[in-house]
Amino acid sequence: AMDGAPPPTSPTGLSAYVAVSQLLGLTLLATTGAWLGRYRGGVAWHSPLQFNAHPLCMVLGMVFLQGDALLVYRVFRHEPKRSTKALHALLHGLALVIALVGIIAVFESHRTKGIPDMYSLHSWCGMATFVLYLLQWFLGCGFFLFPGASFSLRGWYKPHHIFFGIALFILSITSCLLGITEMLLFKISDSYSHFVPEGILANTLGVLLVAFGLVVGYVLTREEWKRPPLAEELALSMDFKTLTEGESPGGGS
Amino acid sequence: AMDGAPPPTSPTGLSAYVAVSQLLGLTLLATTGAWLGRYRGGVAWHSPLQFNAHPLCMVLGMVFLQGDALLVYRVFRHEPKRSTKALHALLHGLALVIALVGIIAVFESHRTKGIPDMYSLHSWCGMATFVLYLLQWFLGCGFFLFPGASFSLRGWYKPHHIFFGIALFILSITSCLLGITEMLLFKISDSYSHFVPEGILANTLGVLLVAFGLVVGYVLTREEWKRPPLAEELALSMDFKTLTEGESPGGGS
Repeated sequence: AMDGAPPPTSPTGLSAYVAVSQLLGLTLLATTGAWLGRYRGGVAWHSPLQFNAHPLCMVLGMVFLQGDALLVYRVFRHEPKRSTKALHALLHGLALVIALVGIIAVFESHRTKGIPDMYSLHSWCGMATFVLYLLQWFLGCGFFLFPGASFSLRGWYKPHHIFFGIALFILSITSCLLGITEMLLFKISDSYSHFVPEGILANTLGVLLVAFGLVVGYVLTREEWKRPPLAEELALSMDFKTLTEGESPGGGS
Repeated sequence: AMDGAPPPTSPTGLSAYVAVSQLLGLTLLATTGAWLGRYRGGVAWHSPLQFNAHPLCMVLGMVFLQGDALLVYRVFRHEPKRSTKALHALLHGLALVIALVGIIAVFESHRTKGIPDMYSLHSWCGMATFVLYLLQWFLGCGFFLFPGASFSLRGWYKPHHIFFGIALFILSITSCLLGITEMLLFKISDSYSHFVPEGILANTLGVLLVAFGLVVGYVLTREEWKRPPLAEELALSMDFKTLTEGESPGGGS
């Protein structure tokens, strides 16, 4: 069963794309910080600046950390699956906590200022994304992390977990773009059309969010970069197949 | 070489999902029409209503027709590849023409009303999507429709064509959501937060756009639903491989 094991080297293209994604991710955070710091008075919790914690938390949690959680299986493609899985769940969990702080920030800020909640397309998309992301996290833990689920049940859920995982990542970025548009039209509706620096900076943040999504999406979907099954996983999977289906352990997985 | 040919039946799940996608697509058009007709005075070309041609054309061209062009390889999975390809290119071409009309509508309407162009995130994302979509269409025709490109060049370009095709479809939907948010904040900024019917309707249009994207994306990415190579394609590909690489025509494609 050891014959199927690939040599433990990462494709060079993969490393370059992952490096670009991390540079883009850090640039996202810096650009969000620059926008809030330079034009929106900065970020503080118990203050009129509490709202500003919302965009910062959402970009950090729902975009940067969520994206990195998806990349884990490509970056640590030769580590044991068990530890990679744990890191994947941990990063998503951290993303969820930070996003929750960001959501509390906007609800508390609205309550203080007497602004109604949940009326805009941004709020509908964003809240749906967060709730489904939380649900997907619980389902992922239940199916893949705890030992209860059967081999065939995991096999059925896995492609759906991957599809909805990528869909929720895209919806998170879309929700951020909607939030940027809303915030600009609330704050600089009179000057936005005159190409003022704040408008250009926030638009650029939107373009960077799209670029981050494209690079992460490319790394995730490129066929040759998918995580190869390790020797012991192949052996396990084949033994299992032999036991349950009576197949001969000849092909790959 | 005929042994590899699958029986010409479509998976039942596929037909159901395609039917849902078409119902959603028609609902998108009806909802856009209802919004523009009931709350925005309708659509007309040489009039102050010219702007309203923009959302209608973009939803029809960049979302519904672009989505259907992507589905062609799943729906006509047992038709010869040549005619499926031609239909794919034709639908994308039609989408491009209708989108161009929609873009002309917004530029002419802005000129008449003295509104600046291309300052918003919606315009940046939308214009980038349209230009890249046009480029992708030319590249697709050049690589796959005209006989010049070599077999190996087509093989290299194909996964990139698919990745960017799906990415541009997602970006088109994202641009529509940004446009909806902009239009609501321009037109009903005072009443939007009071959950007025126009706001609810336009938000619902946004949710339907996301649903259309999810259903089309699911159909496109589900492994078992990918178009199986026909017998004559397999034979051709194997003969070609045998000729150029000296491989024995034993495996699949």
